[in-house]
Amino acid sequence: MRKRTEHRIRIIPLGGLNEIGKNMTVVEVDDEIVVIDCGLAFPEDEMLGIDLVIPDVSYLVKNKEKVRALILTHGHEDHIGAIPYVLRDLNIPIYGTKLTLGLVEIKLMEFGIDLNSVKLFTVKAGDVISFNNMRVEFIRTTHSIADSVAIALHTPLGAIVHTGDFKVDFTPIEGEPIDLIRFAELGKQGVLALLCDSTNAERPGFTLSEKTVGATFDRIFSQAQGRVIVATFSSHIHRVQQVINSAEKQGRKICVLGRSMVNVVNKALELGYLKMPDGMLIDVDELENYPPNKIVLITTGSQGEPMSALSRMASAEHKKVGIIPGDVVIISAAPIPGNEKFVNRVINDLFKQGAQVIYEDIDDIHVSGHACQEEIKLIHNLTRPKYSVPVHGEFKHLIHHAKLAMELGEKNVFILENGKVLEITKDSAKVVGMVQAGNVLVDGLGVGDVGNVVLRDRRHLAQDGLFIVVLTIDSSTRDVIAGPEIISRGFIYIKESEPLIEEAKKVIKDVLYFCRKNDITEPNAIKVILKDNLKNFLFEKTRRNPMIIPIITEV
Amino acid sequence: MRKRTEHRIRIIPLGGLNEIGKNMTVVEVDDEIVVIDCGLAFPEDEMLGIDLVIPDVSYLVKNKEKVRALILTHGHEDHIGAIPYVLRDLNIPIYGTKLTLGLVEIKLMEFGIDLNSVKLFTVKAGDVISFNNMRVEFIRTTHSIADSVAIALHTPLGAIVHTGDFKVDFTPIEGEPIDLIRFAELGKQGVLALLCDSTNAERPGFTLSEKTVGATFDRIFSQAQGRVIVATFSSHIHRVQQVINSAEKQGRKICVLGRSMVNVVNKALELGYLKMPDGMLIDVDELENYPPNKIVLITTGSQGEPMSALSRMASAEHKKVGIIPGDVVIISAAPIPGNEKFVNRVINDLFKQGAQVIYEDIDDIHVSGHACQEEIKLIHNLTRPKYSVPVHGEFKHLIHHAKLAMELGEKNVFILENGKVLEITKDSAKVVGMVQAGNVLVDGLGVGDVGNVVLRDRRHLAQDGLFIVVLTIDSSTRDVIAGPEIISRGFIYIKESEPLIEEAKKVIKDVLYFCRKNDITEPNAIKVILKDNLKNFLFEKTRRNPMIIPIITEV
Repeated sequence: MRKRTEHRIRIIPLGGLNEIGKNMTVVEVDDEIVVIDCGLAFPEDEMLGIDLVIPDVSYLVKNKEKVRALILTHGHEDHIGAIPYVLRDLNIPIYGTKLTLGLVEIKLMEFGIDLNSVKLFTVKAGDVISFNNMRVEFIRTTHSIADSVAIALHTPLGAIVHTGDFKVDFTPIEGEPIDLIRFAELGKQGVLALLCDSTNAERPGFTLSEKTVGATFDRIFSQAQGRVIVATFSSHIHRVQQVINSAEKQGRKICVLGRSMVNVVNKALELGYLKMPDGMLIDVDELENYPPNKIVLITTGSQGEPMSALSRMASAEHKKVGIIPGDVVIISAAPIPGNEKFVNRVINDLFKQGAQVIYEDIDDIHVSGHACQEEIKLIHNLTRPKYSVPVHGEFKHLIHHAKLAMELGEKNVFILENGKVLEITKDSAKVVGMVQAGNVLVDGLGVGDVGNVVLRDRRHLAQDGLFIVVLTIDSSTRDVIAGPEIISRGFIYIKESEPLIEEAKKVIKDVLYFCRKNDITEPNAIKVILKDNLKNFLFEKTRRNPMIIPIITEV
Repeated sequence: MRKRTEHRIRIIPLGGLNEIGKNMTVVEVDDEIVVIDCGLAFPEDEMLGIDLVIPDVSYLVKNKEKVRALILTHGHEDHIGAIPYVLRDLNIPIYGTKLTLGLVEIKLMEFGIDLNSVKLFTVKAGDVISFNNMRVEFIRTTHSIADSVAIALHTPLGAIVHTGDFKVDFTPIEGEPIDLIRFAELGKQGVLALLCDSTNAERPGFTLSEKTVGATFDRIFSQAQGRVIVATFSSHIHRVQQVINSAEKQGRKICVLGRSMVNVVNKALELGYLKMPDGMLIDVDELENYPPNKIVLITTGSQGEPMSALSRMASAEHKKVGIIPGDVVIISAAPIPGNEKFVNRVINDLFKQGAQVIYEDIDDIHVSGHACQEEIKLIHNLTRPKYSVPVHGEFKHLIHHAKLAMELGEKNVFILENGKVLEITKDSAKVVGMVQAGNVLVDGLGVGDVGNVVLRDRRHLAQDGLFIVVLTIDSSTRDVIAGPEIISRGFIYIKESEPLIEEAKKVIKDVLYFCRKNDITEPNAIKVILKDNLKNFLFEKTRRNPMIIPIITEV
């Protein structure tokens, strides 16, 4: 390890603070950088037409030569989803556990990226990788995806512990519980900083074990007279395993539906994260060979995504599987904020098709994957950090988390923002500035080419549509030789409103007369006056404010 | 009452079924019609730019001469909000309790409707109004608004009971509890049909009394060191009364913010539904005369509405009131499905301003106004209807309600849809057809002029924006004499994508060359070919699908 009179550590969140999603944290020790996670976020309602949101990594690109590694805590989209985009500018080594990298590989292949061009290194809990100034240690945790880890970043000033997403599950479905002993050891040695998951910081108590869901599945599966259809996140391997377990007890076969569910289940079976008896998995075309009470379908669509297998079944648009009266559909997930309406629509549609639908309001078919208040306090208590940075949450979560830490007696709790630089030296920790950070919007093939102006226009068009005026003017005589022609879209149903169009044409003619009389000949000047007058006219008549586009051609 | 060999009753919901909102039920007894409620709904996400949704009342307009009255159960928007629109076509007598009509009057005045032109008749619980073939009886209920009633419609074939929205509150804030004895009497005499609120049919148990919220207020108010700010529905008079009561105990003054809150509080004080000691109400300009711990603000904005007083305070945009660190903000409401994100944003913003925010996830500062399963069963048990029609709910609520009724032994439960006609005669009840029913969209001054085509265009524009191609062609030579000019909005940030525009112009030129070579001169034919080619080109280059509008002017 390099000697230095004074070491300088900088912690810079590039995503995941004041938001749910696009988690990314930069840790800089002297002149080396490692990045923890590289996630995407789903667009806000007002980001019309946007497919997804990724972090702005300008700071990393600018400091390319310092970046040693991307470290992944687990394989959820909000932790790995931006990798294919960020790799274009920053082809750095990526370290993650087996399942996490398996999911990264699926993603890279979907983007047509050659896996040989990417430096993927598989690690397991307990492993340590070393750089000049730091060692990165992986610690087993439990979460709503298998093979999740926390990170201990050992620096010259002490360990920085990043929990990743976690819950304290003493009875996980597969493998060992979270490695609390290692957290305790680190605490004993002295933790410099704790960056801890804040998602459930509002919720008192302790998150229930994943195992409790299995008991509910057993009950529902054994009572169901017909098929059982379970929708959940494809990445929730443990939930899928519990579906398999309950199905096995009832002698039911398993059929997997939905592209991402098929991909992930296959990958998880291949890597040994899912266990299923031979012959239990059947193809969708074999369904008719079995009576309904011998079938379980596992499907995507737990968020009501309109194109998912479940949504298509609910609206009777799925090519191969329809709902049969007597089907029991379990939506084994909580709606991500903003998705409530989609999920609700699917539930109503399923009921209309004759299914019995079981969802979060009705039965205990879901538990969270995140730590509640007592678990958060437990991790703080074990690690006893000198400095504390609540991460992964909206402001309300961060502030509740900070309150918990302070109730435990912690004195140095920092609520940061994306881009804020927390600098830690031997004697102090303080926010010293801000680097470029924010949302990069992905729309189709475009990354970052949709900005505020484009979005503002989309919102304007979405609200009241479009009103185009086309005029052709003789460039020498200034006479109108064609038009005004009016084209509207999304504004008003035009047949019903022909008098309105006639009146609008009158407004246009008046403007042209005014311009002529006042010797205004510059097309842009005429356009401005046209726009103003039409805007006022249309608003007065309709209380709507369409986008007005005057087009004047001089010939 | 008119003699007839056989009476015919038709129950036709025109709104409120398979949806939350726009409640309206038609009851037709022989040749007389009464209408129960006339509400609005809020637009679905995909109804871009739409302000609100009202029921299609074509059926009533067509049968104008039969319609005797509009009967109101209570003053919520989803029961009275469509009145100003429906009155234009159907100026029928309106019957409601004092507060309900007070709220209708506020609404009519906002629409600039002369109150003298409207036939409003105040009734009170226990009153009966008579028409030829039926008598309409008003029965006291309890709900999240004062002065709510159920309706018993006495017909030659028996009573039809419509609960309106209700809960069974034995300890309401003001006046008497729900009149269960009257429900029981009607049951004893024999109820023909029960139309009962389904909103909470999924929820087991019994909704807590409104009074429980007061106890929480008392605790929070007494602990608050600074100002207390309570956001709730302006129409929730009882909630407002409890705020006043808790404030009074702590010697705090009350200041009311937000247009609708000011209107409703004034109206309720005037009508005697709110009680406040003299001198307790202060103006916003007097706030500075009192220490923070002597102030309570009551405000609109509990749904996170972006223009509400609370949202403006949260984003530091309110002209007169800012958040002071130490303020305790109570959001005393549940988000209406779809509003979760708005409410969440306000909560985060308030925390950022330094307020302590208390909301549904955190403390018991809200109870529902609707009956849970045990209350629904209670009403069914007391009324013992021959026929049962769950109303007021999405399909999932209706089906859960139907299941409850069947568990009680009811045999004739009808799940209807808006427009479905349930015909009841002496011997039978069956669905006999369908009348016109549905959503009429209100956008600005336009009622019903935004239909599917306009909405489809708005969604298209919202998704990927707009791409206009302007060409001027010499009508005799077919030469292009101006253009192609390209105008895009909401599609792509144009400066970044000039090569794209140049390539698009090349595509346009190729199309024109092709058309010329193949003697295609009809502008519409050229437009179709242009559109197809540009669509493919732009999708291939960007994976976006903007609305393409070719404009060809011949001169």
